[in-house]
Amino acid sequence: MDVYIALVHHPVRNRLGAVVSTAVTNMDIHDLARTAVTYGCRGYVLVTPIVAQREMVRRIVQHWTDGDGRTRNPIRSRAFSCVSVADSLADAIDAIAAEHDGTRPWTIATGAGFSGDVSWQDGRRRLAEEAGSALLVFGTGWGLDEALVDQECDSKLPGIHAVAERAGYNHLPVRAAVAITLDRLLGASSP
Amino acid sequence: MDVYIALVHHPVRNRLGAVVSTAVTNMDIHDLARTAVTYGCRGYVLVTPIVAQREMVRRIVQHWTDGDGRTRNPIRSRAFSCVSVADSLADAIDAIAAEHDGTRPWTIATGAGFSGDVSWQDGRRRLAEEAGSALLVFGTGWGLDEALVDQECDSKLPGIHAVAERAGYNHLPVRAAVAITLDRLLGASSP
Repeated sequence: MDVYIALVHHPVRNRLGAVVSTAVTNMDIHDLARTAVTYGCRGYVLVTPIVAQREMVRRIVQHWTDGDGRTRNPIRSRAFSCVSVADSLADAIDAIAAEHDGTRPWTIATGAGFSGDVSWQDGRRRLAEEAGSALLVFGTGWGLDEALVDQECDSKLPGIHAVAERAGYNHLPVRAAVAITLDRLLGASSP
Repeated sequence: MDVYIALVHHPVRNRLGAVVSTAVTNMDIHDLARTAVTYGCRGYVLVTPIVAQREMVRRIVQHWTDGDGRTRNPIRSRAFSCVSVADSLADAIDAIAAEHDGTRPWTIATGAGFSGDVSWQDGRRRLAEEAGSALLVFGTGWGLDEALVDQECDSKLPGIHAVAERAGYNHLPVRAAVAITLDRLLGASSP
């Protein structure tokens, strides 16, 4: 499958449980672009309904893909060439479908607290063996709004945990969660 | 084993191959602390010979462990309680040895280009089964200086790659490399 990732800034929960829009951060653009391209992802979509933030992302991406950044750091330029923006997760899904004969991507939600309805192993197998596209959806803040997951996503991956004897704290940065998720699904099997 | 991580800011390479000192970034303190504690690490040492940068790290850590940050975000406070600083990797190793009856940690270097002399599987097995301590060493910039690896490290892990058909670009942020390394060595086996 062609794999895409989405970083959702709305609707997500804050630490009090309210639905909010988080701010796009420069670090999230850079880190997730580099990680996505390292794992051969076709695209990385930043989802935010805030027009000014989408415009800011476009300007930063342009700096690295067309501007001085391209000359100075061609490796970073290549990572940024996968970055796009969308108003909503539904729009991101539509854009990917448009590139795949109108067929919706297999849309997979992630969350620290999920028990999951597709295993890591089955997810890995499907991405390797099946045709079409898949969209891995990550929430900022304290995670994706449940209504969004129910309405737009087809599957949920289990939360990421350490081995039981080391577990107990579970607050990964989204940058770490994306990296681990892509490695579990698309990483070279450990020799 | 008790597992520690070190983030080395000197001696590392820059993109022209010169040995440099990189600057400590606030994001690296936060992200690696949260990731380290999620995987049950005992400590996270930022290594820099620059006195003012070590002092800055101490002030940031104090804000989150003693100051207003503790009240505001106790979860972040717990992550920061594992953070310390060292002048050099040798000093970081000595400090860990001092907590383990003078026995040096098994010191493991990481690097994107390494072929490795310990497999992920063997590393995982040793960390689970053996007593004592281990220190995973990560470089900032364009990676650890080779002389440091030769002098101070006992083993090298292989570089992190995507499955062959998706590989080709290999420039993970250090925040992603740390997350993937800890997950491969200490993550719950994928169901």
